Amino acid sequence: MAKQLSGAGLRGQVAGKTALSTVGITGSGLTYRGYDVKELAEKCQFEEVAYLILKGKLPTEQELADYKARLRSLRGLPQALKDVLERIPKDAHPMDVLRTGCSMLGNLETEENFDQQQDVTDRMLACFPSIICYWYRFTHDGVKIDVETDDDSIGSHFLHMLHGEKPSELHAQVMHVSLILYAEHEFNASTFTARVCASTLSDMHSCVTGAIGSLRGPLHGGANEAAMEMIEGFTSPEHAEEEMLGKLARKEKIMGFGHAIYSDSDPRNEIIKMWSEKLSKDVGDDVLYPVSVRCEEVMWREKKLFCNADFFHASAYNFMGIPTKLFTPIFVMSRLTGWAAHVMEQRADNRIIRPSAEYTGEELRSVPALKDRN
Amino acid sequence: MAKQLSGAGLRGQVAGKTALSTVGITGSGLTYRGYDVKELAEKCQFEEVAYLILKGKLPTEQELADYKARLRSLRGLPQALKDVLERIPKDAHPMDVLRTGCSMLGNLETEENFDQQQDVTDRMLACFPSIICYWYRFTHDGVKIDVETDDDSIGSHFLHMLHGEKPSELHAQVMHVSLILYAEHEFNASTFTARVCASTLSDMHSCVTGAIGSLRGPLHGGANEAAMEMIEGFTSPEHAEEEMLGKLARKEKIMGFGHAIYSDSDPRNEIIKMWSEKLSKDVGDDVLYPVSVRCEEVMWREKKLFCNADFFHASAYNFMGIPTKLFTPIFVMSRLTGWAAHVMEQRADNRIIRPSAEYTGEELRSVPALKDRN
Ligand SMILES: CC(C)(COP(=O)(O)OP(=O)(O)OC[C@H]1O[C@@H](n2cnc3c(N)ncnc32)[C@H](O)[C@@H]1OP(=O)(O)O)[C@@H](O)C(=O)NCCC(=O)NCCS
Ligand SMILES: CC(C)(COP(=O)(O)OP(=O)(O)OC[C@H]1O[C@@H](n2cnc3c(N)ncnc32)[C@H](O)[C@@H]1OP(=O)(O)O)[C@@H](O)C(=O)NCCC(=O)NCCS
Repeated sequence: MAKQLSGAGLRGQVAGKTALSTVGITGSGLTYRGYDVKELAEKCQFEEVAYLILKGKLPTEQELADYKARLRSLRGLPQALKDVLERIPKDAHPMDVLRTGCSMLGNLETEENFDQQQDVTDRMLACFPSIICYWYRFTHDGVKIDVETDDDSIGSHFLHMLHGEKPSELHAQVMHVSLILYAEHEFNASTFTARVCASTLSDMHSCVTGAIGSLRGPLHGGANEAAMEMIEGFTSPEHAEEEMLGKLARKEKIMGFGHAIYSDSDPRNEIIKMWSEKLSKDVGDDVLYPVSVRCEEVMWREKKLFCNADFFHASAYNFMGIPTKLFTPIFVMSRLTGWAAHVMEQRADNRIIRPSAEYTGEELRSVPALKDRN
Repeated sequence: MAKQLSGAGLRGQVAGKTALSTVGITGSGLTYRGYDVKELAEKCQFEEVAYLILKGKLPTEQELADYKARLRSLRGLPQALKDVLERIPKDAHPMDVLRTGCSMLGNLETEENFDQQQDVTDRMLACFPSIICYWYRFTHDGVKIDVETDDDSIGSHFLHMLHGEKPSELHAQVMHVSLILYAEHEFNASTFTARVCASTLSDMHSCVTGAIGSLRGPLHGGANEAAMEMIEGFTSPEHAEEEMLGKLARKEKIMGFGHAIYSDSDPRNEIIKMWSEKLSKDVGDDVLYPVSVRCEEVMWREKKLFCNADFFHASAYNFMGIPTKLFTPIFVMSRLTGWAAHVMEQRADNRIIRPSAEYTGEELRSVPALKDRN
């Protein structure tokens, strides 16, 4: 099916330059600063990739150690921010919590000028897991957790706070992979939101707050949660097949499939799928993973639609005991690196992003007096 | 000077359809749903224009009375929101306060589905002035104000809470004009932010929170504050001229001048300029208004750059005793109508907004082992 390459959606239209990533233009599918995401996911920790995206090069051993130590030191939350989180109800959407937490942080630790852009980003990278887990554990378990742990990585810090115990090696590793896969993806809708905001020369917290709001949408980051809600309703591969065929017949959109840029596969899928399979064996699952595989087969056979990064993330996160509603916030913990790097890139060569619209409304008319209207 | 019509900035590129307004395509300059903004500003109250933009038609007398009564009834703030506002420091940027207040409201009164879009918008329209003034008066005057007043209009409600007394007829009228002028402006950067967010099918509070963050930037809504800071440093028209010439020689950007779409005038300028002059006489000013006029003359004579909507808003707001840092939040109170209407329009005919980028980065390369890096 040929994609429409203009107008609403701006599909295929160039909206600026980037040196951060390529999506679907090289054989390798997805690269961050020239490195294939598959190789990064195999060989690196997330903190190396964050450093790469934000500072422009892969860190040396010493630089990595320093960077991780620095991030560890920035995990704490100011009391005023904790007070705010405690006032957000239990049934709120965790993406709304994170959006509010980020915005509140902007009041307490405002980016006063662009020289501070790396520092405010590192701070968010270090404390977003604290924001999510502090609110989640307070409202769900009634505890005020200590967010300043000594965990080695961002992923482990998150799982530790969430479950109240250090994660296994396997889980720590899957978090690295997952955060690497989600870190950066060119001009996707949330990143583009951040760039439009940056183009007015607004501050970093505004850009990131806006991007969180866009990622929340079910057509974007919200897809992993929607995929989970769907697959957990399937009791067997056969049941999944039957239900999927029904959805397709009713022309429903199926979350976790398709992509605005990739046309026949998403390079991130095979990686997270492999880890989902490993986790499935680890927990002795014999439903969720086979069900997921069947969904993939049916969608390809029937519609030539392929799994995007979100689909096997659903089962993988589920196997690690992560509540479904925290899936998209994990995406934020990672994509923050891409957003912030794009903001920095926009600032370095800026023109305000202000497109035009095609007018479809009323012709010029005059204002009737109040009493003459109907 | 010919504008570059592609790439970064998307200037002149069509990014979607709208029936809400035209900017610079008819002789009349700016129309909202077919009505010339000059006529609306002359004949209408802001609430009529908000109704027009949001509901699609000018209200009848009865509809207007009902709408105003409804908005009056929605001015109160939930306790949890007040608690949050009380925790935001006095030196925070009021746009960050409003961004956080809007985001917090989204946690407390979440838009559960798109059927609620008009209701959540009316609620924001009614309570944004409360959010700004509650925080401002609490942090600056140490009082917890009652935000549920019986003032007739949004503008009067705002001035009443800010000054602790009902505004004069003149001030109430200028607020109507100002809010009408700022209400809607096609695909400007903050509105486009809201539409990108809406295109992921995210909720209204996310869209508006993101738009506030974009409006905050000095190239966009922040311009009226920057203009004020500049002109209040000028002691006379002669002094203004001298300083302006210096700025131009140093190639500084001068806030409140120029426009991404209009090429030789901004139709909103003559209206707010006239009201600024009236207010100047009212307060017996003999510096700020003449200084502003001289700035306008110099910019046109030297650079053919004209005042945009923001420039004479600076002096007008100042004459009404509004602190400079609250200028851009007033813009929000008004533009909210345009943002929300654009979100509704995007939802009604949606495709996710996901442009492409021109890649300028590294060629494909392989990941060196940690110990081999430098
Ligand atoms: C990602 C997405 C928003 C891309 O949107 P897009 O570029 O505008 O869509 P395309 O041009 O590729 O769509 C082509 C056709 O495939 C259909 N299609 C695309 N994804 C589909 C899906 N997941 N389920 C069912 N049909 C789908 C579209 O409806 C369209 O059909 P139509 O022309 O009959 O309307 C879209 O694939 C989608 O909504 N996927 C589900 C949400 C999701 O997983 N998002 C996460 C992305 S990482
Ligand atoms: C509004 C604005 C962002 C439009 O941006 P744009 O469409 O990218 O700018 P243009 O293409 O019209 O600019 C053309 C030239 O005029 C110059 N120019 C535009 N506005 C200027 C201003 N306010 N002061 C000095 N020079 C200005 C630009 O620098 C550019 O010169 P260059 O080609 O030598 O760099 C820009 O005019 C501006 O920054 N104005 C000041 C901020 C402001 O008042 N914003 C509120 C808008 S309602």
